[in-house]
Amino acid sequence: MRATVIHGAGDVRLEEVPDPVLGGAREAVVRVVAACVCGSDLWRYRGIAPVDEPKRIGHEFVGIVEEVGADVVDIALGDFVIAPFSGSDGTCANCRNGVYTSCLHGFDWGGTDAEGRLIDAGQGERVRVPDADGTLFPVRDSFEDALIPGLLTLSDVMGTGHHAAISAGVGPGSTVAVVGDGAVGLCAIIAAKRLGATTIIAMSRHEARTALAREFGATHVVAERGDDGVRAVRALTGGIGADQVLECVGTKESMDQAIRSTRPGGMVGYVGVPAGGPELPIRRLFNTNVGVNGGVASVRGYMAELLPEVLSGAIRPGLVFDLELPLAEVAEAYAAMDERRATKVLLRP
Amino acid sequence: MRATVIHGAGDVRLEEVPDPVLGGAREAVVRVVAACVCGSDLWRYRGIAPVDEPKRIGHEFVGIVEEVGADVVDIALGDFVIAPFSGSDGTCANCRNGVYTSCLHGFDWGGTDAEGRLIDAGQGERVRVPDADGTLFPVRDSFEDALIPGLLTLSDVMGTGHHAAISAGVGPGSTVAVVGDGAVGLCAIIAAKRLGATTIIAMSRHEARTALAREFGATHVVAERGDDGVRAVRALTGGIGADQVLECVGTKESMDQAIRSTRPGGMVGYVGVPAGGPELPIRRLFNTNVGVNGGVASVRGYMAELLPEVLSGAIRPGLVFDLELPLAEVAEAYAAMDERRATKVLLRP
Repeated sequence: MRATVIHGAGDVRLEEVPDPVLGGAREAVVRVVAACVCGSDLWRYRGIAPVDEPKRIGHEFVGIVEEVGADVVDIALGDFVIAPFSGSDGTCANCRNGVYTSCLHGFDWGGTDAEGRLIDAGQGERVRVPDADGTLFPVRDSFEDALIPGLLTLSDVMGTGHHAAISAGVGPGSTVAVVGDGAVGLCAIIAAKRLGATTIIAMSRHEARTALAREFGATHVVAERGDDGVRAVRALTGGIGADQVLECVGTKESMDQAIRSTRPGGMVGYVGVPAGGPELPIRRLFNTNVGVNGGVASVRGYMAELLPEVLSGAIRPGLVFDLELPLAEVAEAYAAMDERRATKVLLRP
Repeated sequence: MRATVIHGAGDVRLEEVPDPVLGGAREAVVRVVAACVCGSDLWRYRGIAPVDEPKRIGHEFVGIVEEVGADVVDIALGDFVIAPFSGSDGTCANCRNGVYTSCLHGFDWGGTDAEGRLIDAGQGERVRVPDADGTLFPVRDSFEDALIPGLLTLSDVMGTGHHAAISAGVGPGSTVAVVGDGAVGLCAIIAAKRLGATTIIAMSRHEARTALAREFGATHVVAERGDDGVRAVRALTGGIGADQVLECVGTKESMDQAIRSTRPGGMVGYVGVPAGGPELPIRRLFNTNVGVNGGVASVRGYMAELLPEVLSGAIRPGLVFDLELPLAEVAEAYAAMDERRATKVLLRP
């Protein structure tokens, strides 16, 4: 089969690799229907995270189950499934708490399983899934092909935006600001709206993304950053800041923006992968009672809640994809995201 | 009248000072019935925080209202009142959110008011209160003198322990660990129990405090610290850590202990005043979804909830006082706390 391999900064290739072979009784093999490129994939592409050896890449995909092991009970041959961006057993103490990302027997796409065997990554034609029941989420209702992008966002960005809103405690009547207008930030706006926020401030200066932010439910757009951005948010929130601020970038500057835009007693929900270690000013947090909650989103646990709304069209996170390419053009997919020509690229094997 | 003045490190004196004079129409003058020394008062006593000039000190007191201004409506002459550790107007946007400590017109005991006039501090015979309605909480039910220590804890430590538990989201069935066995940590145990926690681990190695921790509701005591302390907490919590950890110290070590003792997806509720800037390891927090919430406790907002339980004897936070002295011996009160001969000292003018 063909799968994407990253060789180093700026060097992503679609290569011929061995077909996955079903191993243990809890496994499944999935034929990928759609995959995509994540902002965090760009870390290696940009050389920020080192690539020591050629490595499979891609952690967001949906597809059809082609093989299942004897002990798999929740997933059946022919199921359309959504894969969360990391694997879990669904039964350990952390999974039972809903924190699948801290699964005591978790695994990463493109990594290795407990026996040291390669686990295929998502940007390829097929994927062996070590723990099918604990990881994959089946879509049993029928749906139009046009919904595939929306279903694919449940693999990561929609669940991640939702996690920011849940972690911050967004609820009916909330005033919310969203820092970051990438795919996750845009999904965080969807999440804030469906949780009942009545004021949603998108911090964005990118024209196309701003338009989508408004379509998703943003009531205001603030283009300013830094002190001016803080002032603008306060002006829209009774002078004190937003009840909840959703940090969807992960830089020192974005975290600072988020903390300073939150009202006393409010909460920052953060899902931006901390790049370069954003600092948390403990004394300011203490004095103002601003909390910081969030982290890597346990998207597996949100699929049951979000899937029906994607299927009904109540939410349309699939709109974050602004470019679709065949898997053969994966190198162009990376380049388009790296050069900011695309917000998020969908790949079809 | 007589009031306590700190002149420098280790130098606390009871001095003759001018009697407070009622100023504006929103003011009151309170005759102090009981006051106490706070762990944070020791910062100046120990020379950690500089004392540039002689200054009134003390921010926890209860007393009887002796004078009220014409516009005061909620507080009456003769009322027994509890003063929170900082003043507020009760009407600004932050007070309406329950965050009285971020009052837009707040003030500090021993500081100055909007007109630049001295505000008396708590360790004295009388206190002028600039905003009586927004600050003081009246106790209208009759009560025995023996309850005065308990009522005094609502000025700070009981409300602060409660804030740690509320900030962390303690609820029915929670597993909770408490870092710190001072007065606040002990009150946090009371708070965790009344909120429904079923496992409460006191991290303590001080015999008398451990006994009180158990009396207040601790189900387990862990004497170990550092890696051993983390291991001990995990062994008591299904191998993963506590749902909520209440950080009641404020050092780098105690915050580290708290974060590492929290299970993935759990929350640290912190109320220890950050001394020396405890660091927040953002990458660890992100990977494990451990949140950090809390800060300076808005105790004014908790009095309505906690007061009836103090009056009924359902909770007995007054037991944290293990030494009572006349105000004339305030210097000994500081020395006893500084030398750890006392957990918390009550002063009677």
